[in-house]
Amino acid sequence: MTIKSFNPPIRTLMGPGPSDVHPRILEALSRPTIGHLDPIFVGMMEEVKSLLQYAFQTENQLTIPVSAPGSAGMETCFVNLIEAGDQVVVCQNGAFGGRMKENVERSGGIPIMVEDAWGKTIDLNKVEDALKANPAAKILAFVHAETSTGVSADAKSLCELARKYDCLTIVDAVTSLGGTELRVDEWGIDAIYSGTQKCLSCIPGISPVSFSERAVERIKSRTSKVQSWFLDLNLVMGYWGASSKRAYHHTAPVNPLYALHESLVMLQNEGLENAWQRHAMNHEVLKAGVEAMNMEFLVDAAYRLPQLNTVCVPDGIDEAAVRQRLLSQYNLEIGAGLGTLAGKVWRIGLMGFSSKLENITLCVNALELTLKDLGHDFTTGAASEAMLQTLKSQERA
Amino acid sequence: MTIKSFNPPIRTLMGPGPSDVHPRILEALSRPTIGHLDPIFVGMMEEVKSLLQYAFQTENQLTIPVSAPGSAGMETCFVNLIEAGDQVVVCQNGAFGGRMKENVERSGGIPIMVEDAWGKTIDLNKVEDALKANPAAKILAFVHAETSTGVSADAKSLCELARKYDCLTIVDAVTSLGGTELRVDEWGIDAIYSGTQKCLSCIPGISPVSFSERAVERIKSRTSKVQSWFLDLNLVMGYWGASSKRAYHHTAPVNPLYALHESLVMLQNEGLENAWQRHAMNHEVLKAGVEAMNMEFLVDAAYRLPQLNTVCVPDGIDEAAVRQRLLSQYNLEIGAGLGTLAGKVWRIGLMGFSSKLENITLCVNALELTLKDLGHDFTTGAASEAMLQTLKSQERA
Repeated sequence: MTIKSFNPPIRTLMGPGPSDVHPRILEALSRPTIGHLDPIFVGMMEEVKSLLQYAFQTENQLTIPVSAPGSAGMETCFVNLIEAGDQVVVCQNGAFGGRMKENVERSGGIPIMVEDAWGKTIDLNKVEDALKANPAAKILAFVHAETSTGVSADAKSLCELARKYDCLTIVDAVTSLGGTELRVDEWGIDAIYSGTQKCLSCIPGISPVSFSERAVERIKSRTSKVQSWFLDLNLVMGYWGASSKRAYHHTAPVNPLYALHESLVMLQNEGLENAWQRHAMNHEVLKAGVEAMNMEFLVDAAYRLPQLNTVCVPDGIDEAAVRQRLLSQYNLEIGAGLGTLAGKVWRIGLMGFSSKLENITLCVNALELTLKDLGHDFTTGAASEAMLQTLKSQERA
Repeated sequence: MTIKSFNPPIRTLMGPGPSDVHPRILEALSRPTIGHLDPIFVGMMEEVKSLLQYAFQTENQLTIPVSAPGSAGMETCFVNLIEAGDQVVVCQNGAFGGRMKENVERSGGIPIMVEDAWGKTIDLNKVEDALKANPAAKILAFVHAETSTGVSADAKSLCELARKYDCLTIVDAVTSLGGTELRVDEWGIDAIYSGTQKCLSCIPGISPVSFSERAVERIKSRTSKVQSWFLDLNLVMGYWGASSKRAYHHTAPVNPLYALHESLVMLQNEGLENAWQRHAMNHEVLKAGVEAMNMEFLVDAAYRLPQLNTVCVPDGIDEAAVRQRLLSQYNLEIGAGLGTLAGKVWRIGLMGFSSKLENITLCVNALELTLKDLGHDFTTGAASEAMLQTLKSQERA
C-alpha cells in the first residue's frame, strides 16, 4: 500500500491544547533549517533565552527551552532537584498533580500528598500543615494552572509558605505562561516548566523551563548523578550556556525553536500584561454566552482560569456526541473531561491566538445550534445578547 | 531591547546532521496544527508507524517516533530494558558508545565495555570474548553507524552473537536509517533508535524507535517501574497503540510529525534500496574528489559510512579556519571532529536530501579553492577530473 502526503483539515482549536498556531509562527517554523552549532543559530538561542526570561518575568540565567514536550519539562525539574530519599510535598487537585507524584517516586523521592478535590483550588492551610508536619521536606511542588480542571493556584502564597519552611518550589505553568499573571522572580519560584502549545500559540513539542540560583546550586551540589542523561541540567547547561563555550549535548530541534522564537517575539510585541488582560476579558465574553445557555462553570470565579473554561455538561446531553458534531460540522475542537471529570465537563480553551472574539462567537453559536438540536433547554439568542452586553461593558475599541 | 523575527541564512548542510531538509518537508511541517487527539491526526500516526516499519524493515508493532531527539530515543531503549544490576555489554569505538555506557549506569545497570579505537570497526572476537566471559549479561549494545567517526558496524553478525549468548540487542541507528542497509527483522535487532535529521532529511527533534516482541515482553514483565515517566513505554504504548483505545500520555509534537510523515513518504516513493544505492554512489564521487586533493579518509573502505565521510585534515591546515571560511563565504556547513578526533578530521555528511551531485561539487570545489589559498599542495582541477571519471563509471543517466 502506498501512503500519500498528509493534508490536515483546518480546525479551530479550542480544547486544552494545542491552541491555534498563528500563521506567522507556522511560517517561521518552515524557514530553512541551519546547523544547531551554526553561530547564527547560537545567536538565536540567546534571544530565545532573553524572550523566555521576559515571559517568565525572571532574570534566572538558567531559562531555556527543553527539547521535548511539557511532560519532559516536568521530569527535568524533578530528576534534577530530587535525590534518593528526599521528601517532597506535592499538592494534587487534578491530573497533573498526580503526574508530579509519579515523577517524585520515579526520581527516588518520597511524596507527601496534599489533596484537594478536582475543581477546587489548593488549600493553603493544608499545605502549611503538611510542611509543618514534615520538617525534612525539601521541595513543595504544585500546579499553577491545572489543565485538567481549569483551576488556578495562589502561587504567590504557596511560594511564601515554601520559603517559610525552607523548601524549594517546583511549579507547573504549562497552561499559565503567557495567559495569566506569573512572576517567577517576584514570587520566588525556584523551578518552573511550561509548554509551547497553550498560551504561547506555538506548536507542541517544546518545554520552557527556568531555575533560580538556589535551584542551580542544589543541582550543582548533588551527590548522585541525575538519572536521566538527556535531561541532566549539568550537561544541558553546557549546551545552552555562554555561546563562547558551547558543549555538544544533543541536537536542538532547530525549526521548532524558530517557531518558539517567533511566538515569543509576538508576546513581547503585544506586551505580557496586555496578553493577560486579553485572556481575562475574552473569558468574560465566553462566560456570558455559556451562562445564557443555562450552563454552569465547574470552578468558582475566584480561582477560575480564563484560558481554560471547564463547563458542566447539561443533564441528559451526550457530551461526546456534542464534541463529535462540533468537530465534523464546524471543524471546531473543544476538550473532553479528564480522569474523574470524564463525561461531566467540557474544557474550552481560550489560549493565546485562540483567545479572540471570532473564536468565541463561533464556539457559542455552534454550541447553541447543537445543544438546541439535542434538546437542551434555553432561549436561543440570549447568548448573543449577553455577550454583546459584556463587550459593551468592556468598552472595546 | 526589542527582539525581532529571526530569518536564518540559506545554508547547505553537509555536516554530521542536521542534513538539508527538503522543501517538501518544510512545507508539510508548516501545515495547520490540529489536535493530537483528533481522529484525523490519529490516522496519520498510524501511517507514520507503517512508514517507519518500512524504513526499519520490520513488522514490530512497537515502532513509533519518540517525541524528542535521538538522545531521548537512546534513553528510551536503555531505561525500559534495564533493571537494577543488569549487566550490559557495550561496544565503544566512538563518542556514542560512550553515551551508551552513561545510559547503562544511569539506568542502574552494569556496563561491560568492549573498546576499539576511534575510527576502527567493532571487533567481533572481542565482543564474543566479553559475552563468553559474562554469561549473566542480558543485553548487547552497539552503534550501527558511529556519527563521531564515520564507521559502520557489522550489525548482522553482532546480532547473531547476541542471540548465541542469549542477549537482547540495543542498536544505535541514528545515522544509518535511510542511508545504508538496515534490516531489523532479518538481523534480529531487539531495540533500535534513530534520528530524523540525518538520512531522513527531516528536521531534528524526533527519534524513531522499534522494539521486537522479545523486547516488549521484557518491558512488560519488569519488576520495577521505568525510572522515566516521559519515556516509559508501558505508558507510551497506550498512546501510540490501537487507535480505538488511545490513552492520553503527553501532547505529541503535531507539526514535526507532519514533517516526519512527509519525509517517510518520500523515502517510500524513492524506495529504500534505491536510497541506500544513492548514498553509496555519491560517496564514491566525493571520495574521488577528496583523494585527488591528496587527502585521506580516516576509515578503511571496508567499513566506511557513505553518508558520513571522515576526512583527515592535511598537515599544517587550520581545520577550524577552513570550516569558518566555508560557512561565511559559501554558506556551506561541514562538521568538525568530536572528542579524540577534534582538530584532526572533518566530517562531511552526504545524508538524505544532502546526498546529491550539486552538493558534492559545491563542497569539493569550495574546499579546493580554500585549501589552495591556505597553502595545501595538490593539483587544481584533478578533483573535477576524478569525479567525472567516477560518474562515468557509474553510468548515470
